[in-house]
Amino acid sequence: MPGISSLKAELGDAIITDEKEMIPYMSDASYFPGQMPEAVCIPNTVDQVSRILRFCNDNDVPVVVRGGGTSLTGASIPVEGSVVLSMARFDRILEIRTDDKYAVVEPGVRLDRLNSELSRYGHFYPPDPASSMAATVGGSISTNAGGLRAAMYGTTKNWVLGLEVVIPNGKVLWLGGKTLKRTSGYDLTALFVGSEGTLGVITKAVLKIWPLPEARGRISAYFDRIESVGLATAELKKRGKVPMIAEFLDRIAMDSLEHTRGIRFPQDAEYLLLVDIASTRESLKRELEEAVGIIGEFSPSQISYTTDREEMERMYAARKGAYSSLLEERKDSSERVIIGDVVVPASRLPEALRRIRDLIRERGFRASLFGHIGDGNIHINLYADPGKREVMEEVDRLQLEIGRIAVSLEGSVSAEHGIGMEKIGLLREELRMRDSEYVIDIMRAIKATFDPKGILNRGKVFP
Amino acid sequence: MPGISSLKAELGDAIITDEKEMIPYMSDASYFPGQMPEAVCIPNTVDQVSRILRFCNDNDVPVVVRGGGTSLTGASIPVEGSVVLSMARFDRILEIRTDDKYAVVEPGVRLDRLNSELSRYGHFYPPDPASSMAATVGGSISTNAGGLRAAMYGTTKNWVLGLEVVIPNGKVLWLGGKTLKRTSGYDLTALFVGSEGTLGVITKAVLKIWPLPEARGRISAYFDRIESVGLATAELKKRGKVPMIAEFLDRIAMDSLEHTRGIRFPQDAEYLLLVDIASTRESLKRELEEAVGIIGEFSPSQISYTTDREEMERMYAARKGAYSSLLEERKDSSERVIIGDVVVPASRLPEALRRIRDLIRERGFRASLFGHIGDGNIHINLYADPGKREVMEEVDRLQLEIGRIAVSLEGSVSAEHGIGMEKIGLLREELRMRDSEYVIDIMRAIKATFDPKGILNRGKVFP
Repeated sequence: MPGISSLKAELGDAIITDEKEMIPYMSDASYFPGQMPEAVCIPNTVDQVSRILRFCNDNDVPVVVRGGGTSLTGASIPVEGSVVLSMARFDRILEIRTDDKYAVVEPGVRLDRLNSELSRYGHFYPPDPASSMAATVGGSISTNAGGLRAAMYGTTKNWVLGLEVVIPNGKVLWLGGKTLKRTSGYDLTALFVGSEGTLGVITKAVLKIWPLPEARGRISAYFDRIESVGLATAELKKRGKVPMIAEFLDRIAMDSLEHTRGIRFPQDAEYLLLVDIASTRESLKRELEEAVGIIGEFSPSQISYTTDREEMERMYAARKGAYSSLLEERKDSSERVIIGDVVVPASRLPEALRRIRDLIRERGFRASLFGHIGDGNIHINLYADPGKREVMEEVDRLQLEIGRIAVSLEGSVSAEHGIGMEKIGLLREELRMRDSEYVIDIMRAIKATFDPKGILNRGKVFP
Repeated sequence: MPGISSLKAELGDAIITDEKEMIPYMSDASYFPGQMPEAVCIPNTVDQVSRILRFCNDNDVPVVVRGGGTSLTGASIPVEGSVVLSMARFDRILEIRTDDKYAVVEPGVRLDRLNSELSRYGHFYPPDPASSMAATVGGSISTNAGGLRAAMYGTTKNWVLGLEVVIPNGKVLWLGGKTLKRTSGYDLTALFVGSEGTLGVITKAVLKIWPLPEARGRISAYFDRIESVGLATAELKKRGKVPMIAEFLDRIAMDSLEHTRGIRFPQDAEYLLLVDIASTRESLKRELEEAVGIIGEFSPSQISYTTDREEMERMYAARKGAYSSLLEERKDSSERVIIGDVVVPASRLPEALRRIRDLIRERGFRASLFGHIGDGNIHINLYADPGKREVMEEVDRLQLEIGRIAVSLEGSVSAEHGIGMEKIGLLREELRMRDSEYVIDIMRAIKATFDPKGILNRGKVFP
């Protein structure tokens, strides 16, 4: 790469060009193979980020910004001739203010670490993707991560107050800030949330934080019919009982958790619905019993609740590990678990779940369904070998059809994993079905405003 | 206006060109004088909105979209030669789904009407500007309205899931949708929130709705020192007691409410802090008493609480009417009440309040301070005669200095009223102080993406 030596001289230990050392930066949690980058930069300062971007912009070098590398859609995969910009050294929590309800953090801070720190003050940062142990603040902002608690607290977009960003021309800008309210021109902070590293590099984030709920309990209900899981969830919400968390797991997912975590589930149960209710200490029992009553109307084979913290923690960790546990259920070590991420309004869940399950069966795939059912988010986990071209074409066709089901039920092809490399065709299909293809042109023009040469995360999001 | 006759033929009764009939469309709730428009269009259908925009775009005619006309910054004021597009006939509530937690509404629906309808289902739409009786869904989205309940529920940006919009080239687009989660490209829905009618015309909105809290009580605390109001609010939040509402009023505001609403306040009290606590029915009393205990640490001259619904409603309506009540306290009928709208983090409230009050006294203005103190939002109400040029220059200078105080305390020049015509210089100053003036260039480029000829709300927001 021409001129790389000048960048090396400027960056010192903040740049790697040794191929062996760069191998870990070629892949993320998706099944997409990446290219060997030209260099990996691991900057220490905002000024270095600015210099790197200016260099790449001047020399038309593609840049892939990398957080925890937990993308499931290939959003962090380097293309040929690119520079990977790892934000791993931006890992400081700079400020926590419980009176002002914000924390200022660097983008490389991992979500679990942030929440462990906030819990010392009785507060938390609600967005909680299952990958929170490894996922970073920057990456989770870039995909508008949702996770387990979004049923009550919404997704990342509701929790980002401000950002310091560096754009390709090297300028450092503050968007938004430390206040809970602001109406001063276009909300560029919101534009960065979910932009998958295509507009600029986040170097600081002001996150809104919130007091932990006073008391919490968990209901476990087992069902034979997948529709009942959806009906019970929708009815709970209809009656004004917004769950803090509402998750479901199918039999394959339960089996995998038995095998990897030693958690026992009733042998004859097909589906598990987990519902967390947050309340005050005086009202928790009554609210749990009301919710049990509502869920009970849909004939669960078993239903119970607990307020035992240890039991709750163990199951929470297990649910978060469900995706990796599924790997244990592979029939063959060349198989991967390819995860889908559609979302529909809660009332459409019974139909969506049934149609998706039937379609998968019809196509002869082995798959596990689980998801954040409280906000209508269904993850479809397909077992397939990414090395087999014909199988993968089948997978793509199936994903497209599942996406169409979601959109036809007023949902979306992507709830929280983003578009990355994987869902470019799905995004286009969603916009086509909604008669809004021109939205892609607008997005492209906005992208060009920040990044006229298109150096940032080339080959992602846009067709 | 050339070609207006063809538009008239197309629109029939949806267009007014009689000057007398157009007078009400020349002004909004601000003190800015408007120009007589060329025509007022009051479309009945999305197709008509599309035709009007296409016509205006083709003929380079400025368009001002109008909701309830409650802008305090001149955002709805027509410029010379413009067409006013009133969304008054888009007044239907199309769908309410409590299981899915959304309502689909047209932009001309007034917020109080929406909430009255939602309350029949035990739900509400949290954004609640003081003008909610007249303010519309479209207008409140366009300014990212906050209002009284933002301390707990955040501003409008957290409550808009999707929008149908028409852009100047006449295209109708769906942005976002009916799901609680979505990550499919840039969040253009969020870009429209707070864009003050400069990007497109909202024709439908999918709003997130929420169950009403089970129980609610209100604390009234009177203080002699303005700093104590800020300290008590910050301490409440620090200890994890997020108020549903936290408002403050100064003596002039209390006097005006005595005169207009007959509400009695203690004669010697300088400041009133109103705090609403939302809780469950079992826990309300305990939570109110805990909050009274915390506020009590800051030496209020009086403090009490109530859970009487009628008393609470009466005071809520009075607080919402505070701005118009202040008109009663004018010394002269040529005076107007010019309202400022700064915001700071809660912990900076004591300093912000003191400095703003001292500055106003120093400049010899008569003013009343009140605001949504729970989220750091202070409204400065200055009595001044807009007809007196020198006085208004003094007002502008004072607003600029108050804005600088807010920004220097990590706040913003505009919390919830937007920029409009009034705060263009303030916005620029805020960006200058934050070393982010380039943000205006980016906003301008984004604006040009949607509206290349700049027909929408010309002369607003941008310098």
